[in-house]
Amino acid sequence: MEEFKHEHPPTPRTREEKDKVINRLKRIEGQVRGIQNMVEDDRYCLDVLVQISAIQSALKNVGFAVTERHMQHCVSDAIQNGDGEEMIDELLTVLKQFSK
Amino acid sequence: MEEFKHEHPPTPRTREEKDKVINRLKRIEGQVRGIQNMVEDDRYCLDVLVQISAIQSALKNVGFAVTERHMQHCVSDAIQNGDGEEMIDELLTVLKQFSK
Amino acid sequence: MEEFKHEHPPTPRTREEKDKVINRLKRIEGQVRGIQNMVEDDRYCLDVLVQISAIQSALKNVGFAVTERHMQHCVSDAIQNGDGEEMIDELLTVLKQFSK
Amino acid sequence: MEEFKHEHPPTPRTREEKDKVINRLKRIEGQVRGIQNMVEDDRYCLDVLVQISAIQSALKNVGFAVTERHMQHCVSDAIQNGDGEEMIDELLTVLKQFSK
Repeated sequence: MEEFKHEHPPTPRTREEKDKVINRLKRIEGQVRGIQNMVEDDRYCLDVLVQISAIQSALKNVGFAVTERHMQHCVSDAIQNGDGEEMIDELLTVLKQFSK
Repeated sequence: MEEFKHEHPPTPRTREEKDKVINRLKRIEGQVRGIQNMVEDDRYCLDVLVQISAIQSALKNVGFAVTERHMQHCVSDAIQNGDGEEMIDELLTVLKQFSK
Repeated sequence: MEEFKHEHPPTPRTREEKDKVINRLKRIEGQVRGIQNMVEDDRYCLDVLVQISAIQSALKNVGFAVTERHMQHCVSDAIQNGDGEEMIDELLTVLKQFSK
Repeated sequence: MEEFKHEHPPTPRTREEKDKVINRLKRIEGQVRGIQNMVEDDRYCLDVLVQISAIQSALKNVGFAVTERHMQHCVSDAIQNGDGEEMIDELLTVLKQFSK
């Protein structure tokens, strides 16, 4: 795992915040299983590809939700404590990878 | 589901071809569950984002494997039967979505 | 430059095909100059970023137009001559890079 | 043009900052002209596609440089003035488009 400034968000996620992200990931998990069945049923290649695109889009949205929470809490708190620069650099490094 | 020229590949996938794709999807399914646990354990946002990027990359590779098989079989067979143009058009439509 | 099977398309582009692609690239060239002026005029960062996204989208469309022509001519001709496999492999290698 | 909170960065770009971005954009402009010549010379489709990918990558890097400057100045200043939330929202809206 990369070395970041924190192992956990300085402001812990609430139960509600956790459930919101976990439920979206559970739906994605179900979609991945769905594609396994499509391949097992020898469904047409392009139908499979369309489903993979749908999961990519859902994953990207989860990633941006995590990014937003990170910016609104971790990065904002660090900036208010005068320690924002490093937090912005590490976020951009990850966003470059995430936006490929 | 979009309307494509086929419901199933004209040349059915072999058992080996199916297992190869399904096993990769099962690994991705496990990775998605792994992120659920990271969120449950309140792991740092950027660690979660790095894992999401890893899944996106794995999914993209599965998508290109499906695309390659489609081009080597379905599209090639159609071209040899003089019926390639439509197959190329529908593939490009899906690739534009997949490459977002 | 990568080593591909051809230096030129086996079926040369028509004058009309060339002009179509070159005109789109000229518009993109103008958009890039437009962003230089925005930066010179110290326009807001997000306005600049929106324009960069517009160019990325225009470039992607040019790339897919080139890909479509390639598949309809170079790849199809090779497949009909029984020589399609390598052409499909080299295309997919480039598409993986192009879709990042 | 979208409606953002500012028309210009609250902290104007320095001459050096402007030149850095403009020079990169000038190189990209030259690359776009280069592709026009490749098409005029009927160069192989995949060589053209490789060059388009190179420009996409260069553009993405310029976009992230603009984003970094925006976060280090505009967003950070707003957060320190207790006005960060809206700035983060508008940035994420643009980043979602930019990362397509």
